[in-house]
Amino acid sequence: MKLATYQNSTRDGQLMVVSRDLTRAVAVPHIAASLQAALDDWDKIEPQLQQVYQALNRGEAAGAEAFDQARCHSPLPRAYQWADGSAYLNHVELVRKARGATVPESFYSDPLMYQGGSDNFLPPRAAIPLRDPAWGLDFEGEVAVITGDVTLGAGVEACGRAIRLLMLVNDVTLRNLIPNELAKGFGFFQSKPATAFSPVAVTPDELGEAWEGGKVHLPLLVDYNDAFYGRPNAGVEMQFSFPELVAHVAKTRALAAGSIVGSGTVSNHDRSVGSCCLAEQRMIEIIDSGEARTPFMKVGDKVRIEMKNAAGESLFGAIEQTVVAHD
Amino acid sequence: MKLATYQNSTRDGQLMVVSRDLTRAVAVPHIAASLQAALDDWDKIEPQLQQVYQALNRGEAAGAEAFDQARCHSPLPRAYQWADGSAYLNHVELVRKARGATVPESFYSDPLMYQGGSDNFLPPRAAIPLRDPAWGLDFEGEVAVITGDVTLGAGVEACGRAIRLLMLVNDVTLRNLIPNELAKGFGFFQSKPATAFSPVAVTPDELGEAWEGGKVHLPLLVDYNDAFYGRPNAGVEMQFSFPELVAHVAKTRALAAGSIVGSGTVSNHDRSVGSCCLAEQRMIEIIDSGEARTPFMKVGDKVRIEMKNAAGESLFGAIEQTVVAHD
Repeated sequence: MKLATYQNSTRDGQLMVVSRDLTRAVAVPHIAASLQAALDDWDKIEPQLQQVYQALNRGEAAGAEAFDQARCHSPLPRAYQWADGSAYLNHVELVRKARGATVPESFYSDPLMYQGGSDNFLPPRAAIPLRDPAWGLDFEGEVAVITGDVTLGAGVEACGRAIRLLMLVNDVTLRNLIPNELAKGFGFFQSKPATAFSPVAVTPDELGEAWEGGKVHLPLLVDYNDAFYGRPNAGVEMQFSFPELVAHVAKTRALAAGSIVGSGTVSNHDRSVGSCCLAEQRMIEIIDSGEARTPFMKVGDKVRIEMKNAAGESLFGAIEQTVVAHD
Repeated sequence: MKLATYQNSTRDGQLMVVSRDLTRAVAVPHIAASLQAALDDWDKIEPQLQQVYQALNRGEAAGAEAFDQARCHSPLPRAYQWADGSAYLNHVELVRKARGATVPESFYSDPLMYQGGSDNFLPPRAAIPLRDPAWGLDFEGEVAVITGDVTLGAGVEACGRAIRLLMLVNDVTLRNLIPNELAKGFGFFQSKPATAFSPVAVTPDELGEAWEGGKVHLPLLVDYNDAFYGRPNAGVEMQFSFPELVAHVAKTRALAAGSIVGSGTVSNHDRSVGSCCLAEQRMIEIIDSGEARTPFMKVGDKVRIEMKNAAGESLFGAIEQTVVAHD
């Protein structure tokens, strides 16, 4: 099943069921007021949404209209939790190597994860506001899951069963604010402004065989300023599966329905597949030549993040964002 | 005005208007479905809640009943943001001094803040579940504000005007998980399990002259296992006011209505006033004698957090929590 949220005059938007091929959509206010409301009561609501989805795919859903990704907000315009892992250790290795450090052994068994702000996501086609270019604006292409309720101490298997939906992510980052924040010891805060998610969230079964072992075995396609930038496979070298990342959260606290848990920047050792963020290219440049040449994003720069199945069909729609100046 | 949320079968609970003296309360489902709903539309809803509040204080509110703090959830049982500062630098100084380090000069001008989990708060009288006593369970007595919408880049004055309500906090912390998490560089995560807030949230005017300069100039009263533990004044030595803490968040992103921003553990240089967390006592012991003697919380231990006005009246009701084992 595929779901989206159209922007309207409300904070949580209009829940839409979207056809598998992303061409048609139908509003379902009679089933749930919002995606969060659907997640709050998933066992009861999900079958009703599935009925609409099946009818929509057959071309028989009453009230269906052409699906317009430009009208979408992030599937959850605001959420109660956004916890982002860093499961592709190639990304971590490059960052460390560029400053002459190694990756601690524990990083291969104990996930890195930070708590992100979730009160105010950007729509997938919204501009990225930039107050100061010196802050070093970067995109980060990721995959994320939305969970149902997860009990305190839940194991990996139970966490896997609690995964309701998947999305793509642009985890916008202000790179030059990171060193000072990490030196303070409290983790990322100002360096992580509002995140954007893909127009469409999909149930795991929509990925078919690509959803295997709690990972998405498909390339994440990133274009930067209308040119190829990266297509690393999200299922390769993901050190921790999504169920393992959710279990990391659940170790010391329960998760409420609608919690978003991210993969971290998708990254492969194979350099020919490119990168999903500018920082990684800069690290490669530092390692290779001693100096970063790739600049961070400036006003007018564009990023596009998408994922296609083996048949070449877009699964989640595309995140497309341009940087604008903000006074 | 004073507001509370009674636990019921819904995730967001029943919004209650509470009398100034905390003796009476009235449900207001006809005005707003929940406190979050009220905050989402505050300019329209607040005057209606005020009318009920005034009638309640006059003893004239229809449907009023005795107020029962034990029925309360945290005022926002789940929230879209919980950002916690560390504005009492005496606390930071003790932590650093105990390990032979000094406080960097920048800490006096650049607030420390971490992003907390907000999907699943504990009710103020709920047990604190503990899976492993070796994790070093501690309480932290704090004050927090709930904001309205704040625009990206808003200044301190605008942030001050956006403060809607104040609450007390028990920022539950797993001390022994902190060193490993901070070493990883991504900040607190598993070391910060579910937080609890006071039974009642109050508008700033309820504090009278004690609300001055964006700080609460009253002692925070902490009892531990039914004995005095601390009463530091929350208005003394608070390095950053609440408006300044909110502006710290707004530097790189907008805040949505219902965002909670905390003060960090209240702490005074005057040792005679005690502490609001066990870790601080342990640091003082290490500084004085080279060894921490105060153990962390174990099953059965109780903490109580309250604040009274100059007349000795409880302002927010009391957080009262006991530790229970969780398998």
